[in-house]
Amino acid sequence: MTTVFDPEGDVLSGDTADVYFARTQLIMRNEDLNPVVTMEVFATGSGVLCGMTEVLALLARVLAEEGEVWALDEGGEMSAKEVVLRITAPYRSFVIYETAILGILAQQSGWATAAWACVEAAQGIPIISFGARHVHPRVAGRLEYAAMVGGFVGCATPAGARMGGVTPSGTIPHALILIMGDTVEAIKAFDRHVSGEVNRIALVDTFKDEAEESLRVAETLGEKLWGVRLDTPAERGRVTPDLVKEVRARLDQAGHERVRIVVSGGIDAERIGLFVERGAPVDAFGVGSAVSSAPPIDFTADIKAIEGKPVAKRGRIPGITSNPRLRKVDLSEARS
Amino acid sequence: MTTVFDPEGDVLSGDTADVYFARTQLIMRNEDLNPVVTMEVFATGSGVLCGMTEVLALLARVLAEEGEVWALDEGGEMSAKEVVLRITAPYRSFVIYETAILGILAQQSGWATAAWACVEAAQGIPIISFGARHVHPRVAGRLEYAAMVGGFVGCATPAGARMGGVTPSGTIPHALILIMGDTVEAIKAFDRHVSGEVNRIALVDTFKDEAEESLRVAETLGEKLWGVRLDTPAERGRVTPDLVKEVRARLDQAGHERVRIVVSGGIDAERIGLFVERGAPVDAFGVGSAVSSAPPIDFTADIKAIEGKPVAKRGRIPGITSNPRLRKVDLSEARS
Amino acid sequence: MTTVFDPEGDVLSGDTADVYFARTQLIMRNEDLNPVVTMEVFATGSGVLCGMTEVLALLARVLAEEGEVWALDEGGEMSAKEVVLRITAPYRSFVIYETAILGILAQQSGWATAAWACVEAAQGIPIISFGARHVHPRVAGRLEYAAMVGGFVGCATPAGARMGGVTPSGTIPHALILIMGDTVEAIKAFDRHVSGEVNRIALVDTFKDEAEESLRVAETLGEKLWGVRLDTPAERGRVTPDLVKEVRARLDQAGHERVRIVVSGGIDAERIGLFVERGAPVDAFGVGSAVSSAPPIDFTADIKAIEGKPVAKRGRIPGITSNPRLRKVDLSEARS
Amino acid sequence: MTTVFDPEGDVLSGDTADVYFARTQLIMRNEDLNPVVTMEVFATGSGVLCGMTEVLALLARVLAEEGEVWALDEGGEMSAKEVVLRITAPYRSFVIYETAILGILAQQSGWATAAWACVEAAQGIPIISFGARHVHPRVAGRLEYAAMVGGFVGCATPAGARMGGVTPSGTIPHALILIMGDTVEAIKAFDRHVSGEVNRIALVDTFKDEAEESLRVAETLGEKLWGVRLDTPAERGRVTPDLVKEVRARLDQAGHERVRIVVSGGIDAERIGLFVERGAPVDAFGVGSAVSSAPPIDFTADIKAIEGKPVAKRGRIPGITSNPRLRKVDLSEARS
Amino acid sequence: MTTVFDPEGDVLSGDTADVYFARTQLIMRNEDLNPVVTMEVFATGSGVLCGMTEVLALLARVLAEEGEVWALDEGGEMSAKEVVLRITAPYRSFVIYETAILGILAQQSGWATAAWACVEAAQGIPIISFGARHVHPRVAGRLEYAAMVGGFVGCATPAGARMGGVTPSGTIPHALILIMGDTVEAIKAFDRHVSGEVNRIALVDTFKDEAEESLRVAETLGEKLWGVRLDTPAERGRVTPDLVKEVRARLDQAGHERVRIVVSGGIDAERIGLFVERGAPVDAFGVGSAVSSAPPIDFTADIKAIEGKPVAKRGRIPGITSNPRLRKVDLSEARS
Amino acid sequence: MTTVFDPEGDVLSGDTADVYFARTQLIMRNEDLNPVVTMEVFATGSGVLCGMTEVLALLARVLAEEGEVWALDEGGEMSAKEVVLRITAPYRSFVIYETAILGILAQQSGWATAAWACVEAAQGIPIISFGARHVHPRVAGRLEYAAMVGGFVGCATPAGARMGGVTPSGTIPHALILIMGDTVEAIKAFDRHVSGEVNRIALVDTFKDEAEESLRVAETLGEKLWGVRLDTPAERGRVTPDLVKEVRARLDQAGHERVRIVVSGGIDAERIGLFVERGAPVDAFGVGSAVSSAPPIDFTADIKAIEGKPVAKRGRIPGITSNPRLRKVDLSEARS
Repeated sequence: MTTVFDPEGDVLSGDTADVYFARTQLIMRNEDLNPVVTMEVFATGSGVLCGMTEVLALLARVLAEEGEVWALDEGGEMSAKEVVLRITAPYRSFVIYETAILGILAQQSGWATAAWACVEAAQGIPIISFGARHVHPRVAGRLEYAAMVGGFVGCATPAGARMGGVTPSGTIPHALILIMGDTVEAIKAFDRHVSGEVNRIALVDTFKDEAEESLRVAETLGEKLWGVRLDTPAERGRVTPDLVKEVRARLDQAGHERVRIVVSGGIDAERIGLFVERGAPVDAFGVGSAVSSAPPIDFTADIKAIEGKPVAKRGRIPGITSNPRLRKVDLSEARS
Repeated sequence: MTTVFDPEGDVLSGDTADVYFARTQLIMRNEDLNPVVTMEVFATGSGVLCGMTEVLALLARVLAEEGEVWALDEGGEMSAKEVVLRITAPYRSFVIYETAILGILAQQSGWATAAWACVEAAQGIPIISFGARHVHPRVAGRLEYAAMVGGFVGCATPAGARMGGVTPSGTIPHALILIMGDTVEAIKAFDRHVSGEVNRIALVDTFKDEAEESLRVAETLGEKLWGVRLDTPAERGRVTPDLVKEVRARLDQAGHERVRIVVSGGIDAERIGLFVERGAPVDAFGVGSAVSSAPPIDFTADIKAIEGKPVAKRGRIPGITSNPRLRKVDLSEARS
Repeated sequence: MTTVFDPEGDVLSGDTADVYFARTQLIMRNEDLNPVVTMEVFATGSGVLCGMTEVLALLARVLAEEGEVWALDEGGEMSAKEVVLRITAPYRSFVIYETAILGILAQQSGWATAAWACVEAAQGIPIISFGARHVHPRVAGRLEYAAMVGGFVGCATPAGARMGGVTPSGTIPHALILIMGDTVEAIKAFDRHVSGEVNRIALVDTFKDEAEESLRVAETLGEKLWGVRLDTPAERGRVTPDLVKEVRARLDQAGHERVRIVVSGGIDAERIGLFVERGAPVDAFGVGSAVSSAPPIDFTADIKAIEGKPVAKRGRIPGITSNPRLRKVDLSEARS
Repeated sequence: MTTVFDPEGDVLSGDTADVYFARTQLIMRNEDLNPVVTMEVFATGSGVLCGMTEVLALLARVLAEEGEVWALDEGGEMSAKEVVLRITAPYRSFVIYETAILGILAQQSGWATAAWACVEAAQGIPIISFGARHVHPRVAGRLEYAAMVGGFVGCATPAGARMGGVTPSGTIPHALILIMGDTVEAIKAFDRHVSGEVNRIALVDTFKDEAEESLRVAETLGEKLWGVRLDTPAERGRVTPDLVKEVRARLDQAGHERVRIVVSGGIDAERIGLFVERGAPVDAFGVGSAVSSAPPIDFTADIKAIEGKPVAKRGRIPGITSNPRLRKVDLSEARS
Repeated sequence: MTTVFDPEGDVLSGDTADVYFARTQLIMRNEDLNPVVTMEVFATGSGVLCGMTEVLALLARVLAEEGEVWALDEGGEMSAKEVVLRITAPYRSFVIYETAILGILAQQSGWATAAWACVEAAQGIPIISFGARHVHPRVAGRLEYAAMVGGFVGCATPAGARMGGVTPSGTIPHALILIMGDTVEAIKAFDRHVSGEVNRIALVDTFKDEAEESLRVAETLGEKLWGVRLDTPAERGRVTPDLVKEVRARLDQAGHERVRIVVSGGIDAERIGLFVERGAPVDAFGVGSAVSSAPPIDFTADIKAIEGKPVAKRGRIPGITSNPRLRKVDLSEARS
Repeated sequence: MTTVFDPEGDVLSGDTADVYFARTQLIMRNEDLNPVVTMEVFATGSGVLCGMTEVLALLARVLAEEGEVWALDEGGEMSAKEVVLRITAPYRSFVIYETAILGILAQQSGWATAAWACVEAAQGIPIISFGARHVHPRVAGRLEYAAMVGGFVGCATPAGARMGGVTPSGTIPHALILIMGDTVEAIKAFDRHVSGEVNRIALVDTFKDEAEESLRVAETLGEKLWGVRLDTPAERGRVTPDLVKEVRARLDQAGHERVRIVVSGGIDAERIGLFVERGAPVDAFGVGSAVSSAPPIDFTADIKAIEGKPVAKRGRIPGITSNPRLRKVDLSEARS
């Protein structure tokens, strides 16, 4: 994954960093100061750690040979206040990257943790990330990557799919159906022109009743139909567990037991729990804003030692914090 | 601002878009369909619109000449369900940009709206964005830009400052003080090496009591000290209104009435309201996670007409939605 | 209305009364006691008084000539603890009717008061009673009568309609549509066979999407269609304000502005308020369980004077309670 | 019980039914339609089923020979959404009875379920129904019958007692005591004139302190006194557990250990639980509004098959619902 | 009031003071330190100030001539954080009295403030303090004094009455009635032996129903009866507004309009509000635990200047706090 | 402890008693009544019994020889409504002491019970009473005594210490430090002049940061320093668990492992629980208002027998209440 997470120019230049770090670097240079410091990074809340791979790629690029780094693994669970990263190196070599390191971890761990809550609730039903439309395209891929670090099995954008090592998932947008004028025509066109490797999944709430439309596409596409997607809008009461049960029953009664049901539209961990509790036969969920609206998990970086001597600002305990879960990182690997 | 928000390659290629839009584009091409459609975009919640400048820069790049665009202004207030953007153009020319358009607006409007809530609470006390450390560096600048669209007067990163047309703000990090070993030595070094155009603001909670340290730096720097920043950590009970009052009183009693007090550390609209209500003499706030943790505001794009004929999916009302606040956009301007 | 509320045999015989009243009557006869007593009846809660017409019909039948009765009017508002009825007569003549008098008032005033809360919420939109299916058929008519005393404009059963002096309202049950196999066929059959004086109202949620079906019946029946009824079940998210707006818009766009929209299914005062607040263009509501599930309003009868001398049990104040709103009743009128 | 629950004329005529069923019957006749349909009835909530005996008596009267009926037993527990009744018969023969069937079950199951909650709370202490005064006399007997189906051991009206197969219970009303002028005189008169088979129970809160009065009647009636009833009104703080304990202690100290204590007045499951938890020595409760104010349990009837073919309206699953607890009913028995 | 609040030996000796003040006095003496300090006292909460008279009596006794004292008035309202007392004097002369000064104000202001809340609720109905039984006899008088500072018109103990300048109030305890064996006998004995200046108030809930007993004592004592006291215990549902209304009505109907009704037993501001709101004709309340259970209002003493130079500990603002409501105290008056 | 709790003149004279007891005594004398009565005392709530020693000292002084007393032990747990004291004696000998007996038990049991809740929360960490400043000096000693009965290990006033049989505890007040101008100078002066038997505990939040000051005093006093006290005011966010951890760590890193940490300032059972739960290394707590603000526990005295015959007022059960936990008291011991 080295290439995927290669640091970009504006990160390396400090353009996206809080400016006081650049000023600190300047002052230290002018004062001829460059002590070896130990900096520790911890999260204020617990969750799933995400972004460490990218952080290590950055450190591999900027840290001098003698720098030493200890870290938790990408995708691992972390406790509140647990140290997840410890850097010991001449401070001028990494002072301007604190903002980036914290930001990479904060936002993606927030997303991964929210995704993991959905995965827990789904009790084995697979979930696909549909959240790109809620975040800036510059981080749409990272959002979907984080969702997969948190346990989702797929995502909708090529950018995210590449980072997660999967193929992007997609059904048919309402737009195509509106343009074709009929759901059955749209799925037939899809079937004509899209590679056979892509699953045929019909969106069935555009024009007609979902159950009626499900039967129509199942009759038309026969064996080739992989599944239907229910995405009833809030204005129509959203997808309910009973709707899934009814569509399942009507499909089964017509002999379409093999057609799967995908559910989307305002799905979060709580609503997933409701579908599971009521025994709604969902084959996959599509989840967007439950992940994209997760707040970042605040990470903090503290200098805990200077030239081996314990220090700390008021409110923190001087010296290295013991954490046997930390693993020493071979940066040369990351560099290669 | 054209250059600042110029669309990037992976947006233009659809790499960050939901893949079903690329498939729709493929199917339409193969079916030789390319109707002129009218698509409307609205937010599900009210707030401050942010990202429209960037969206229009994208549309200027991709829409054919005949495309027509109506939009609300960047930074304007928007109501829930109000149409903020209406595009009428051959659908194949913009089908793959729906994800990007929604994402640009959603995340940045979320941030701008949260910033605006802080600005409202502050009743005229200026606020500076300190939130870059909670988001991925790829959007750190956008976050700070959005905070300024929402009413903040400054920010900490060069990237954000450039988009907002301001100079980045920065005091001194705890790290420099730890390395210099004393707050007074750190502010003196800052004063020696940093351009005189930058305000001297001392961070005063690193080693000693905030009031004591404020008096020490005020005595040392004299007229050159612009202000002090209180950033007491949660472990020490955070900055309280009473602390601000006390530092103010002690500075005044020592003749340092001109030294300003900047407050940061876990500040949000509610806590700003508390400082204001209790009459704490704060000169500026630094706000981070209150903005960066704001959830995106969900935007939806609906096709409402095809070749002039009203259509809509179930749950929506066919046809153009009247909104006299929309202003017709001259894309050629945006293009130049 | 005399015939409608004529007392029945089991009431007159005391069969439905608490048995201790019959025993009291026996003891008084054996002890040769029959003082003139004044009994007052009051409700423990406020609301709309309903059942008084029936109570007076009973008293007209059983009270001797010298009996004197004061009462509030049927359908009037009553306050908590306000005396609504005062009877002065030889006690043996009415001792066994206390249970019936209280029960007639309690249950029907409970229903009327609940109906009135819906009427208040509806701000002028008419409401029809659909609640017969929640109560025993022996009181189904009384339920609907009480709902109309509370302000409903119509009801579904002939029994209730007769007491309320209206014509019963009815659309088409789901059953007929299921049997005919299609909503359009059902409304056409209805139109063929049912008297032209009955409004044609199509139930439009049986097989297909409500909006689609509304358009189909409007196209078919043309000017003859009075309205459509939306009754989406809980399993499908119930009728929402947005559904009403959408159906209205789609009907209007197709030129069916004159087709009315009736909304039913789990409607109560709170949900009526939601429809009104959101501006949903509802032409009439059908309300059932919001009325039928109203608890009775507890009424109490107290002897307050015996042979003109004030008395009362512990907890009550002896003597007649002043209430200038009471009106003296001419029982001979009721008798005729 | 056949005679007790024999259907009445206005039910048989459809006078108390929603009018659209009569219209459906008319349309079907005119269209010459009379398919064999299967209708299922289920409750939306769980509870104690009551009214089935009456429903079956109605079906026995109206269904043709070939009709087939499956049902749960009167008084059994039912789960939410469980099918409690399944009818398969030519639809015209029972279409107009849906309203009555649902209403009979809804109101009485609501009452029986509320009664059962009191019985559960009472942990073996017997309860008698005192609720006739809160409902219309036309259903007073049904209310008391339902309370006994829910576990009460007795009731106050002859009508209810007949349906429940018991003797009606009654003490002395406050009215008799007020007329006799003294509690002791009243109980003596009761003892003189009322059949020896009826228990002597003195109401002891009319004129004097309950404890004082209890001792007076115990001294007077001696062995003949079965018990006392405490009915302290709300104005005097209602009966409390401590009052029961005190009356018990004072009776015992005077040698009247055999005199029982009956408690009434605003008693519901919660207050029963309080008496039990505090160890108050209550021998029987009288309960009224806790049962009579119970809302009906909503029942729904769905056509699930027509001529053996599964059907259903939107929101329901076509075809017969499996329920092994249903028992096939021999209508000829009910008919005899 | 000088004698009443004369300081006692163990206060003057410091025996009841926190020992570190005595040690401070010792250290100052040994170090030959005795600066003139200004100490300010403020309450952390708002309320009615009580105890200042006693504090000033203490200061008059211990402060040297040159001491200067500013104070708010006894019984005045005070705001949270408002300075209520400012002492400027050589510190050794009053260092050991800080505990006593704070304690005197804290506990009594707490009581007075709670009393005032009851007075506010009573809207002019007089209240008498009955709380001595909840506090140690050493402060029983102070409790009743504080209640009167808070607005009560009388109290039950001679000690409290002396401080408040009133005559102690008292009816008859249940004990006397139990010993006499009858309420009427007890009030007659009271009338025989107690000075005619003391109001005859009969306690009427000991043996019989309150209304019955009220009539008995009114008949017996005639014009000499000042009033009755209702004190129904919690076991019997406490005194209710309806009981007061009923007793009033029954007394009036028997011609005893002049007999007053006093209500006691678990009365607090909330229940007083209920009696007032319901229009219960109460002539006086007896209140105990609502005052005695009030928590002390925490007072703090801060040294704000030493030899005229502003000082303060961390968290407080150095120097004198402006409060124009403070009045300079002439200690020589207090001394005389 | 006899001398400590010797009854005072105003208690013996009845000056602090409700005046109706003195009047009862007068009436009984004039009527020549003096029956032997049995009076029982119980608390309305559960808790730790405190004050019984003082009550028994009072009874030993006033009861005639033939009086018999049964009681629970000082400091024992008591249940709600459990009889804690039973007196059998001629009533005139103790009638005027009921107010004092109840008050002594009520207020002190309230305090002891609140103290015990803190002790439970502290799980073995010792607690010292600091509450004298919230109560009147006349009961300051009793407050501290009660806190120790509830489990505290020490207190701050000589008066309380004497009753509890301990030495008073005290550190240094902020006042001394303000006057000496420096925390280190103050602790040095303390060390020079205060007996070596008194622990040296430095208060470390007056002028500088608590951690910094802790290190300064530890360096200065060396082995002689027993501990430091953290008392950060509310204006500065109070003492937090993290502050304790940090001070502990900084002291340990500097080799001062033996210096203890005492925590005070707004400490109650809930906050103690927080310190314990977070593992803050607190060596002792100082607790004030959590005890002093505890409401009295209401005690009631009932006459239950007269000359051996069971009696009781309405609401209570006549006769002696069995309680095997009561122990017969040898008053002659208490007298000696």
